[in-house]
Amino acid sequence: MPATPARLELIALPDFPFVNQGDDLSRLVVEGVARAGVPLQDGDVVVLAQKIVSKAEGRLVDLAAIEPSAEAKTLASQVLKDPRLVELVLRESRRVVRARPHVLIVEHRLGLIMANAGIDQSNVDSDGRDVALLLPDNPDASAESLRARLHAASGAAVGVVINDSFGRPWRRGTMGIAIGAAGLPALIDRRGDPDLFGRALQVTMIGFADEIAASASLLMGPADEGRPVVLMRGLTWRAPPNPAAELLRPETEDLFR
Amino acid sequence: MPATPARLELIALPDFPFVNQGDDLSRLVVEGVARAGVPLQDGDVVVLAQKIVSKAEGRLVDLAAIEPSAEAKTLASQVLKDPRLVELVLRESRRVVRARPHVLIVEHRLGLIMANAGIDQSNVDSDGRDVALLLPDNPDASAESLRARLHAASGAAVGVVINDSFGRPWRRGTMGIAIGAAGLPALIDRRGDPDLFGRALQVTMIGFADEIAASASLLMGPADEGRPVVLMRGLTWRAPPNPAAELLRPETEDLFR
Repeated sequence: MPATPARLELIALPDFPFVNQGDDLSRLVVEGVARAGVPLQDGDVVVLAQKIVSKAEGRLVDLAAIEPSAEAKTLASQVLKDPRLVELVLRESRRVVRARPHVLIVEHRLGLIMANAGIDQSNVDSDGRDVALLLPDNPDASAESLRARLHAASGAAVGVVINDSFGRPWRRGTMGIAIGAAGLPALIDRRGDPDLFGRALQVTMIGFADEIAASASLLMGPADEGRPVVLMRGLTWRAPPNPAAELLRPETEDLFR
Repeated sequence: MPATPARLELIALPDFPFVNQGDDLSRLVVEGVARAGVPLQDGDVVVLAQKIVSKAEGRLVDLAAIEPSAEAKTLASQVLKDPRLVELVLRESRRVVRARPHVLIVEHRLGLIMANAGIDQSNVDSDGRDVALLLPDNPDASAESLRARLHAASGAAVGVVINDSFGRPWRRGTMGIAIGAAGLPALIDRRGDPDLFGRALQVTMIGFADEIAASASLLMGPADEGRPVVLMRGLTWRAPPNPAAELLRPETEDLFR
């Protein structure tokens, strides 16, 4: 039988401060769990909204400083978006997957297939400027750095997931997805595990960090700066840790791009 | 601000019995929450694995009784699957979306895009027979029926979600997804809601029931007959209820099929 927990608790850290470039997120998390009366324990998983990780890492871009290329201008007229935003999307991407009026889906340089390269113009504290927030440069590395710092600060061996809201083919509505992970298996590979009746399981790979990311989204809400950090207590796993990059389906295995 | 909860608790009902055709799942759930010491309250959400709903509804099919058509035989040789299973997949589907060796993705008659029409050959109590388990005939109706019966039995106004594990384009690993829902908004439409800074949100539709389904999957584990029912306590919502069918993206809006 898998080491599946019987109970799980999710706690959104209360009154999490606005995050600015250079802030030490691990310190803010440790202060936040203390405020909530739930100091970190071994096995806890801390889920952080992409936005605060990006802001702490200084990924806010002033659109006034962006000069769109001819390619960006042409694409912008096709998708009916700000040419400066489209320029940023192209800089962040390997290629355009779908372009339609009001729709720009790309393969991000990280390998994520997503709208607008994950660049966010909503819900960003802008001081009146037109700004855009890029994804962290390397979300798995960001998660690992946070995991190590949380361990150093608290003594607890915790997992870290960085989540973001993704649209999906075939289904309406966004869903929380893991763009970074550390200290836990983002992808669990059960090939060979017997099921209850001793047969090998047909469904063999589980998007563990994606399910964690989606759970936390229920508490963060869409305006996720209000509750950008969720503590999950009670998860268990037996597989070795691997990063969120393991969740990316290689193009050669992909029938839908 | 959205009516987002600050804490959530998920409880897998312990020692849930094996489910057979004709079993009253609402009674089993009410007995299960009593055993767990968490009698149903208003606002609770009960998540049930598709398998037990299908079994209670008698959706187990003896493959020995299935005569594959010529079309099923041809397709089976292409995808390297049991022709009788492929026959069932075709009967349950509107059309084939992708067919490759070991891969058969269809549009289920319910509108779901999924592998093998959601038909499961693993983890089914078969008494030695080769059997397959089909999806419930109408999972939204199953969820609504369960919701009404749980309300009648407990007095509590609860939400019900029926989940299943789905593969996804672009990402490796399965994830829990809602195939049926009642008593809660499967899809939350926030178009027009202001964000923290008073701007209209760009991300406007949230796959609420899918995020609930994914959360519960963390507790059910892959051999989900072991823990096929999860109680979620602490969720809040303001939108009116709508069924899981709302999560289906109409083909005319879909860029990936």
